[in-house]
Amino acid sequence: MNTYSPRLSRLIEALRKLPGVGPKSAQRMAFHLLDRDRAGADKLAQTLGEALTGITRCPTCRMFCEDASCRYCTPARTATGQLCVVETPADLMAIEGGTAYRGRYFVLMGRLSPLDGIGPEQLGLAQLQALLDEGQIQEMIVATNPTVEGEATAYFVAEMAKGASVKVTRIAHGVPMGGELEYVDGGTLAHALSGRTPV
Amino acid sequence: MNTYSPRLSRLIEALRKLPGVGPKSAQRMAFHLLDRDRAGADKLAQTLGEALTGITRCPTCRMFCEDASCRYCTPARTATGQLCVVETPADLMAIEGGTAYRGRYFVLMGRLSPLDGIGPEQLGLAQLQALLDEGQIQEMIVATNPTVEGEATAYFVAEMAKGASVKVTRIAHGVPMGGELEYVDGGTLAHALSGRTPV
Repeated sequence: MNTYSPRLSRLIEALRKLPGVGPKSAQRMAFHLLDRDRAGADKLAQTLGEALTGITRCPTCRMFCEDASCRYCTPARTATGQLCVVETPADLMAIEGGTAYRGRYFVLMGRLSPLDGIGPEQLGLAQLQALLDEGQIQEMIVATNPTVEGEATAYFVAEMAKGASVKVTRIAHGVPMGGELEYVDGGTLAHALSGRTPV
Repeated sequence: MNTYSPRLSRLIEALRKLPGVGPKSAQRMAFHLLDRDRAGADKLAQTLGEALTGITRCPTCRMFCEDASCRYCTPARTATGQLCVVETPADLMAIEGGTAYRGRYFVLMGRLSPLDGIGPEQLGLAQLQALLDEGQIQEMIVATNPTVEGEATAYFVAEMAKGASVKVTRIAHGVPMGGELEYVDGGTLAHALSGRTPV
């Protein structure tokens, strides 16, 4: 068995906690930082500390925010009257980066999954209800993932919005742009066909 | 373009400096740490700080060491009379973990590569010379990688050892265990054939 010196061992153990990092990658990262990029390691330690103290959750949209002013809950965004419900911060960044949508967001930080103990409470759906009841939202766009849990979550939040008389839409699911029908899976194709729109 | 808040942006930038981590992975790591593993992030920052202050290079073998006592330069290892020359700390860990070798090491922290400005000085070959001249080493095992630069380095250090009347050996290169001749590349096969040993 490989044995490392205590500090090195603790560093490798801590790096392994990162998603997608196994023992080999963690060792490679540790040696890289110690051998070639001590300044980078110092910077990483510092930015981690900064992020932990400075980054909190927006009480309204649940996205990460700094200094108590959320960049996704601005008056300009509120004025659009649109609210996009996503599962994770990464989904928010994808929509923000890939589309022209500039309305508000609500980040669930997960999806309904009763078996894992994730219910409406864990997803902050009371906050979403409060947002919907405010009366400033005209349209709620549900952008959860097209998985079983994602669809269940979509159905749940849609019912909430209907209760508050807010128009609900769901992002389209179908053949991806540039994709070829021949290589698209059956589920997606069935979805694309049943979701056909007039030209 | 995706834009992050300042602290988040700095954290993602710092994570991208890790080997094998691109923008997507860095974002994933940052969100994971902030959302699900704040304790892990804190631990990582702490262990990084500890490692940077506590881990230095052994002045004799150039491996990372703590508290000025190198675990690879012990009297017991010196008594074997063997010295294994490797390119990187990861190579040392691989030999230590995969073989029964328990002699001393010398870590070059690179390989001769004049075009990149890496000469004998950068590899600490003066230190290696001092080690060889000490008279305690009976055999030097050269375990640099079988690349062009690795072979050049092997030749260079072998000449040094011969000058100090130390026996020099090179680890065997050939067909890997469990490998099939059919799928082994020509260079390896040629090496295996020319390096054949009596049974």
